[in-house]
Amino acid sequence: MRFTSEQRLDDGLDDGVVEREFVLDEIPGILWTPSSASAPVPLILLGHPPLGLRRMYPRLVARARSAAAYGFAAATIELPGSGDRPRLPGVEQAGAALRRALEAGEPVGEEIIDALVLPLVDKAVPEWQTALDALLSLPEIGGPVGFSGGVISIGVRLAVVEPRIVAAGLFAGSFVPRVIFEEARQVTIPLHVLLQWDDEGNDRQAALDLFDAFGSKEKTLHANMGGHTGVPQFAGEDAAGFFTRHLR
Amino acid sequence: MRFTSEQRLDDGLDDGVVEREFVLDEIPGILWTPSSASAPVPLILLGHPPLGLRRMYPRLVARARSAAAYGFAAATIELPGSGDRPRLPGVEQAGAALRRALEAGEPVGEEIIDALVLPLVDKAVPEWQTALDALLSLPEIGGPVGFSGGVISIGVRLAVVEPRIVAAGLFAGSFVPRVIFEEARQVTIPLHVLLQWDDEGNDRQAALDLFDAFGSKEKTLHANMGGHTGVPQFAGEDAAGFFTRHLR
Repeated sequence: MRFTSEQRLDDGLDDGVVEREFVLDEIPGILWTPSSASAPVPLILLGHPPLGLRRMYPRLVARARSAAAYGFAAATIELPGSGDRPRLPGVEQAGAALRRALEAGEPVGEEIIDALVLPLVDKAVPEWQTALDALLSLPEIGGPVGFSGGVISIGVRLAVVEPRIVAAGLFAGSFVPRVIFEEARQVTIPLHVLLQWDDEGNDRQAALDLFDAFGSKEKTLHANMGGHTGVPQFAGEDAAGFFTRHLR
Repeated sequence: MRFTSEQRLDDGLDDGVVEREFVLDEIPGILWTPSSASAPVPLILLGHPPLGLRRMYPRLVARARSAAAYGFAAATIELPGSGDRPRLPGVEQAGAALRRALEAGEPVGEEIIDALVLPLVDKAVPEWQTALDALLSLPEIGGPVGFSGGVISIGVRLAVVEPRIVAAGLFAGSFVPRVIFEEARQVTIPLHVLLQWDDEGNDRQAALDLFDAFGSKEKTLHANMGGHTGVPQFAGEDAAGFFTRHLR
């Protein structure tokens, strides 16, 4: 893990956050730590959709600042096929097939969803685990670790295979491969699932079915009005409460 | 409104609550105010199932203490047909018919639900409005007013007809008469709806349909694991956050 930049973000409203960009095995990432921390802090891994870190930066830094206000570090890495990383060829084709099906109002076949999501999950999950190795070796990061948001299939797989992740806040999505749906039954960590009730890109019933499938004894669904990007401010505060209960 | 008792409840953990029992038009009720309040405070009306105030007291006083910790007064009145109040004859018969249908595993007909719920709603709602008149005339109660929990059909009707109620926290129930379901579309105040995912006494899909029907632009569904009485502690904290946003 090689840090390539460091700056202190300070808007005068809080104690500020130190933002460091890094590269790990040629994968770019960003780490945010609360300026005021004097002891090792818990860590939240910030998931995001595969649109590239640069495009997602404004939302990511807002989430990182919010995490810092609760005393948590936050970190993220670029997804396979996004940003400046090499494309995943099959995934691009599946994405085009998905858009064609949606525009034609046709049902999206399972083979399209599998081809779109599974290669991403298979490649991304070990990368997040490697990032976790490096992040937890830093003296300022203590743990425990939470995972928050992004591609829900990546969150599900990580929750199953990565024992260092003790709680996950997931964003409901309906394009979930059947194999991931089955893995969801093996998830046992506490979950906090956000659902946008009128999400234009997601099937509500599929999202409710996935929530039902999770094996966790503690799982909470927070459904709010509005479309995919209309998550209300207070939903973030409730999620912060969830992580505070489980990472403190 | 005639106060019949007054005591200070103080467990040493908080600033304490003053509990006053009252009688209004022969209906018993209880008012809790934060001991430390120096200015008029907002009010939360505490709904409850028709099991009698005495039986519900432990849960009601816990909710009132929690409200007081956020600076709110809380009040409740006995429901028609409950406690020492005269029975509602048709409602008792409908309750017996409901139990027979449930025990036999038969679908519960709409006429049973109507006979069970509508007389209660029709009689209770004007009583809560009269209680609100009296409570808001007290110098220590300022407003605004929220309604919390209890029989969801009463909450729906109150949210439609009582403009002084500006926000409602409802507990999902599936035995909702068709006429109340239609009234739900007219609700416009912010709603916070709790759903117990495995509630033995409620149909999950019916509860989701009712949530969908509410006309409010801001409505949030919080679904948690467990049965009817298994609402987790943190669900109460999220609800407190909801009322703090809307009553402050």
